[in-house]
Amino acid sequence: MKKDKHLKPWQQKLHEVIYEADTPAGKLFDLAILFVIVISVILVMLESVTAYIMEYAHEFYVAEWIITIIFTVEYILRILCIKRPKTYVLSFYGIVDLLSTLPSYIGLLVGGANLLFAIRALRLLRVFRILKVTRYIGESQKLIKALKNSKAKILVFLFAVLIICVIAGTLMHLVEGGNGGFDNIPLSIYWCIVTLTTVGFGDIAPITPLGRLIASLIMIMGYGIIAVPTGIVSAEYSKSYETKTPTNTQVCPNCNETKHLDGAEYCHNCSHKLNE
Amino acid sequence: MKKDKHLKPWQQKLHEVIYEADTPAGKLFDLAILFVIVISVILVMLESVTAYIMEYAHEFYVAEWIITIIFTVEYILRILCIKRPKTYVLSFYGIVDLLSTLPSYIGLLVGGANLLFAIRALRLLRVFRILKVTRYIGESQKLIKALKNSKAKILVFLFAVLIICVIAGTLMHLVEGGNGGFDNIPLSIYWCIVTLTTVGFGDIAPITPLGRLIASLIMIMGYGIIAVPTGIVSAEYSKSYETKTPTNTQVCPNCNETKHLDGAEYCHNCSHKLNE
Amino acid sequence: MKKDKHLKPWQQKLHEVIYEADTPAGKLFDLAILFVIVISVILVMLESVTAYIMEYAHEFYVAEWIITIIFTVEYILRILCIKRPKTYVLSFYGIVDLLSTLPSYIGLLVGGANLLFAIRALRLLRVFRILKVTRYIGESQKLIKALKNSKAKILVFLFAVLIICVIAGTLMHLVEGGNGGFDNIPLSIYWCIVTLTTVGFGDIAPITPLGRLIASLIMIMGYGIIAVPTGIVSAEYSKSYETKTPTNTQVCPNCNETKHLDGAEYCHNCSHKLNE
Amino acid sequence: MKKDKHLKPWQQKLHEVIYEADTPAGKLFDLAILFVIVISVILVMLESVTAYIMEYAHEFYVAEWIITIIFTVEYILRILCIKRPKTYVLSFYGIVDLLSTLPSYIGLLVGGANLLFAIRALRLLRVFRILKVTRYIGESQKLIKALKNSKAKILVFLFAVLIICVIAGTLMHLVEGGNGGFDNIPLSIYWCIVTLTTVGFGDIAPITPLGRLIASLIMIMGYGIIAVPTGIVSAEYSKSYETKTPTNTQVCPNCNETKHLDGAEYCHNCSHKLNE
Repeated sequence: MKKDKHLKPWQQKLHEVIYEADTPAGKLFDLAILFVIVISVILVMLESVTAYIMEYAHEFYVAEWIITIIFTVEYILRILCIKRPKTYVLSFYGIVDLLSTLPSYIGLLVGGANLLFAIRALRLLRVFRILKVTRYIGESQKLIKALKNSKAKILVFLFAVLIICVIAGTLMHLVEGGNGGFDNIPLSIYWCIVTLTTVGFGDIAPITPLGRLIASLIMIMGYGIIAVPTGIVSAEYSKSYETKTPTNTQVCPNCNETKHLDGAEYCHNCSHKLNE
Repeated sequence: MKKDKHLKPWQQKLHEVIYEADTPAGKLFDLAILFVIVISVILVMLESVTAYIMEYAHEFYVAEWIITIIFTVEYILRILCIKRPKTYVLSFYGIVDLLSTLPSYIGLLVGGANLLFAIRALRLLRVFRILKVTRYIGESQKLIKALKNSKAKILVFLFAVLIICVIAGTLMHLVEGGNGGFDNIPLSIYWCIVTLTTVGFGDIAPITPLGRLIASLIMIMGYGIIAVPTGIVSAEYSKSYETKTPTNTQVCPNCNETKHLDGAEYCHNCSHKLNE
Repeated sequence: MKKDKHLKPWQQKLHEVIYEADTPAGKLFDLAILFVIVISVILVMLESVTAYIMEYAHEFYVAEWIITIIFTVEYILRILCIKRPKTYVLSFYGIVDLLSTLPSYIGLLVGGANLLFAIRALRLLRVFRILKVTRYIGESQKLIKALKNSKAKILVFLFAVLIICVIAGTLMHLVEGGNGGFDNIPLSIYWCIVTLTTVGFGDIAPITPLGRLIASLIMIMGYGIIAVPTGIVSAEYSKSYETKTPTNTQVCPNCNETKHLDGAEYCHNCSHKLNE
Repeated sequence: MKKDKHLKPWQQKLHEVIYEADTPAGKLFDLAILFVIVISVILVMLESVTAYIMEYAHEFYVAEWIITIIFTVEYILRILCIKRPKTYVLSFYGIVDLLSTLPSYIGLLVGGANLLFAIRALRLLRVFRILKVTRYIGESQKLIKALKNSKAKILVFLFAVLIICVIAGTLMHLVEGGNGGFDNIPLSIYWCIVTLTTVGFGDIAPITPLGRLIASLIMIMGYGIIAVPTGIVSAEYSKSYETKTPTNTQVCPNCNETKHLDGAEYCHNCSHKLNE
């Protein structure tokens, strides 16, 4: 381990408030940040509704800057009170914190009507603030781990789905070629994905009898093979739940019998006293 | 335990009929109430069909009052024949019983054309009577328990779905911005939920190639991650089925310790020889 | 057991051909009937296409009568060569056999333009012939058994779905009342079922922001609770698969030790020879 | 085993590069072929977009021939460096390799405007090149094996789905007969498949109350029975994960019998005392 710089007392206190949730102050800080995050994401959403941005342009502007300043202060404090700021800055949450705060400042610097789309895209980056919420959910770690364990299998499955869609899409393009939604193969593949995943928008739908027959096969296939990822994750979960033998690793000093019940005081094989 | 008021004989008899289903009278009472509940809910539904309410307004009115009176009597009897009426009144079923009976009376009191919407909303509360049916389903307890056990994980999962939808919705708004259904972010998020849950109404659908590519990814993601809640509940269910501790039912003749390992010859608690 | 009438040799031979599939003749008979069933169902389908029935009315008529006569002969033979004809006639397959053959004869008897709908309905009964196919699928028994085991739980689940739909449908009717698809509660409930089951036709869809919010909740709920029936059936299936201890019920004649490994010849506890 | 022809040194070297992935050259070859496959499939897709084929007809032509030549060379090399070329040519990948290369040559030979559709279909066969990718995915073998194990059950399930759809489709045709989408039974069955699999395009949807009631039942059924294939595959997967025989690895010093029960003191085969 490298030699870390020593934290001053005020830094240690700050670290406890910001990075931990054991003290009342720490819990309050977490709740306050959670509140600002939710408010902030709702604001980004409402801002996109034309009617609202027209009427409350000024209010949105003020609110956005208050939130930006709060997050800027949080970001600086987080850097100040940690031993190795680099670890934080380059961590997932460090990048999310920066990415969701920066757009407001960049929007200030580059103000030009001809950059509108880029700025709009930038401003929407602020929605990533919602990822800051995951910091406060303990259970999510387990879920992510379970998904990671079956990742390889799920990826292979999704890849198989893609191959099916490419081939079925090409077939549908050939059969339904003349009709609206199947003009070209990429579109037919898009339709196949919509169908196989049982989403079924209905903006594109087969018209010819043969096309409908193939569509039926794709649907039944999609209905059947959804069992595969489910089976994988189920088995993965079940595995971790399976009852281990409730025995311990105590060895009888007399007969070397192992696998004694938890809490056993005498060997069940030779009646010799077990060591605690 | 607090001192309960003593029930008089007629109260005890009534209690047996209303709260229990062991006697023929109790079973008959349950069936009668079930019948009235079903009729009542069907009436509330039909009442909302304009054609019916126009033609049979009077019949609906009469039927509704008959049902209201039956439920009122039931409510009063339930209070009369129980030791601690408060427990019932504040219980889930007590609230449902009150909530589904009161609207008729309130509708009688406040009659004014300017309160139409409030009254309509109130009257629809009567549909909650259907919850009274759950009282008669034994199996439902197990289901609710299984759901409760995996509640935390399912909530985290649904929260993850929401985060995905917020980010994907913002992205779709950026990409498909000019087109009908993606005008603002809340609408785009609504579309993402419709798509990720594989519902796919089709009232809103992407048009641009890039939008369709992102939509495909969302759909495949939705098709894949549905495995997660399923896996959780499956594992939760399987767990309760799994073979328990591999111990036997031998009882130590010396210390009465139970749950000895299969094959144990001496008590693990007091070293006494176990009976074969 | 009641005294059965004795089968004559030709009846026994016929029984072997019709009811069993061990002999070449029996297999051939099964295949022939399977072929006629498939042809018959396809004919019923094609007959419903206006263009076909217009042009090939006579051919359909002839084909239908050939098939009807074949099934009539099969029905009579099945009755002739069984000990207790009543058992067959009242069995599931006996009823299906009768139900799918009778319509043709009835259609012959009652010929009147004013009975058109009833006759059309009757004629469509012939489609039930497809159920005759299940006779030839061995695996289906296991599936039906697995479904039967979890029937009670699945019914409770579907009932819960119905209750959710009734309440959510009423809510949607209240919120979206003015708009097309939510005019009355039955229609709103229909929409809720379409949505909760993730089918999502899109012929009815919410328009108001609040309606869309509730719709989102219904969809996420439907996406989440699909895990419940899946979990039930998975657990039910897994249970039957669980590895039983590969030990037998042999008891050592010397020390009464039980649970010996399959194939063990000597007691693993006292070395005494085990009985075969 | 038949006597194989001996491979010359250059054939052995080539075999290592083409059929194996252990050497750097072998890995490079695999990556190169993977790259060409992906490019090739993307080209086939883009070619179907009218706007692109109009503008870049020549470029597509050139690219296609380069790819065809690469795959032809690969095909010839694969035949040259294998002991029994027949095994490869008749294998799944051999057929895919041929099938996806041939169309370009055939398109060259038969050039006539009146064969347009056949040629178009032929050219689309090239999309099967995507199946060549599966050669490089190890995990897929396990998935295919798991699917194969539950194939019989899944097929029976899908067959049951089909029977339900035929009967429900006929019923819907009878009930909704007059309306657009239910004109004939094949169309009604198509709609039933769309509904039962929870795809729900919405291009066809019931209008009559009775039709909607039946539709609701079909949807709830589809929502409920999706649990069946999932349960099958889950159990199949879990089975392979489950803890095996509770025997230990003790070897009898007398008869070398293995797999003794945990806790056994004497060999169950020859009664010799086991070592602790």
